[in-house]
Amino acid sequence: MALHFTQVTIIGVGLIGGSLGMILRRKGLATRIVGVGRRVENLKTAVELGAIDRYVIDPKEGVRDADLVVLATPVDTYERHLTDWASCLKPGAIVTDVGSVKGLLVEQAERAMPAGVHFVGAHPIAGKEKTGVAAGSDQLFMGARCIITPTKTTDQQALEQVRRMWQETGSVVLTMDAHLHDKILGAVSHLPHVAAFALINALAEIRDQQLPSLDLANHSGGGLRDTTRIAASSPEMWRDIFLWNRDNVVTFIEAYERSLGLLKQLIRAGDAAGIEKELERARQEREKLSTRPALTAQ
Amino acid sequence: MALHFTQVTIIGVGLIGGSLGMILRRKGLATRIVGVGRRVENLKTAVELGAIDRYVIDPKEGVRDADLVVLATPVDTYERHLTDWASCLKPGAIVTDVGSVKGLLVEQAERAMPAGVHFVGAHPIAGKEKTGVAAGSDQLFMGARCIITPTKTTDQQALEQVRRMWQETGSVVLTMDAHLHDKILGAVSHLPHVAAFALINALAEIRDQQLPSLDLANHSGGGLRDTTRIAASSPEMWRDIFLWNRDNVVTFIEAYERSLGLLKQLIRAGDAAGIEKELERARQEREKLSTRPALTAQ
Repeated sequence: MALHFTQVTIIGVGLIGGSLGMILRRKGLATRIVGVGRRVENLKTAVELGAIDRYVIDPKEGVRDADLVVLATPVDTYERHLTDWASCLKPGAIVTDVGSVKGLLVEQAERAMPAGVHFVGAHPIAGKEKTGVAAGSDQLFMGARCIITPTKTTDQQALEQVRRMWQETGSVVLTMDAHLHDKILGAVSHLPHVAAFALINALAEIRDQQLPSLDLANHSGGGLRDTTRIAASSPEMWRDIFLWNRDNVVTFIEAYERSLGLLKQLIRAGDAAGIEKELERARQEREKLSTRPALTAQ
Repeated sequence: MALHFTQVTIIGVGLIGGSLGMILRRKGLATRIVGVGRRVENLKTAVELGAIDRYVIDPKEGVRDADLVVLATPVDTYERHLTDWASCLKPGAIVTDVGSVKGLLVEQAERAMPAGVHFVGAHPIAGKEKTGVAAGSDQLFMGARCIITPTKTTDQQALEQVRRMWQETGSVVLTMDAHLHDKILGAVSHLPHVAAFALINALAEIRDQQLPSLDLANHSGGGLRDTTRIAASSPEMWRDIFLWNRDNVVTFIEAYERSLGLLKQLIRAGDAAGIEKELERARQEREKLSTRPALTAQ
């Protein structure tokens, strides 16, 4: 049977929610797409860009007739949202999300569902530094991975609907335990973001405290630009990711502190062989990454 | 008067030395270009690629008739090289280098010059992850910066010759104090390299110790790939850079450890406002980098 929803409601019509709406509309996968948000200007833009058919400000009204609700707001707002409108959902409705953290949030969302309503957690890994529906595109998810995180209690039909929706976006859909997702993304995505944010702040401190003639914009080359590119990402979004994946992120920062501390000690001691061994290990690991094309933007 | 050398001798015909040779030959800036190196295979390749006219294995023989000697070997070999052949240089000869560290090395090289021979330190900032003459190109330096680091005792005519040579490569040539060079490059280039090397090693440790299901190649996205791209750089070259710029690099790693530690404490404490403030500071600094095109590859 073809995938089709009578009403999809997107809560938070930004880069991800808006791009998903564009695809659902273009492919005729929903009879109507309703956007819910706080900023009317943004919702009007979303209508103009073809991301949604219409919008409402009150999420209770927005979700009432939805077959599928896509929660695409910052993860820190989930609890407030679900408390507000979960009781308004109709039986058989599916709620899914697009959050970058899953473990605790999936547990929380499942607990918040009324009887007969099904939650399926999902994480399309397709962010970029730009945010907002104006940066959206029906090509955003093409070739990117989308990780779906079912639990023991996940409804199989709901899972299948969400999986098929993400396949329609051109994503490579995979399934993973929600807590494993947070560990893996904590390592390959959240830790590099911490590293990039902290690096640019360290350089600003070096300039301000030690080296006033350092002009970061003029003196930096491609290495620094690449290394810190993701430090231009949304502070609000990453604040929430770090908070909601706190334990993993702190544990992984500590592993990073150790490897950084080791390299520092070797350099301080002038241990040429030791430094070279560390750098060679890094080079070999990094080369393995180069052998496959990047699947995702973030 | 047009820039012209009767003989240029390039010691170390790799990416940088070889690319410079290609340009000097193509532009007719030298009557003959002699390459010196340890590996005959590489020197033969350099002749085939038009980087040098001929080669010798013995540097003493190679430098004897040179007007200009370009020292393009790893910086850690400078002392050995200069001790070996500086006394063979003819009066009026110029020695220059292409090393990524300058302060102590420039002092060392100046001390090693016999009477009437002039040293001028230079650093063309145009590396890339690939090494070797086969990766060379007469376009390598186009638009890249080349920092020349004269001292109080630098011969003005020799300085002018080296400056003009680098201008001929298409570089943007600037002049800077050798020790200031090491501080600035230590911040904008060496520290990001430490960060990238240590990050990939931390991820390998996380995988090996805590998360065996972590497949770095399959799970990583563009963020990790960009953040660690420079970790694929030459371990030998970066070992030497870290050693020869040891004090600055250690000091800057410590600044990085502080900013990383601050972010960790804020995340551990669940301090949402504090985290956001740090990330916002990073985002603003990073945005300033984006407003100008990268001048260099490394």
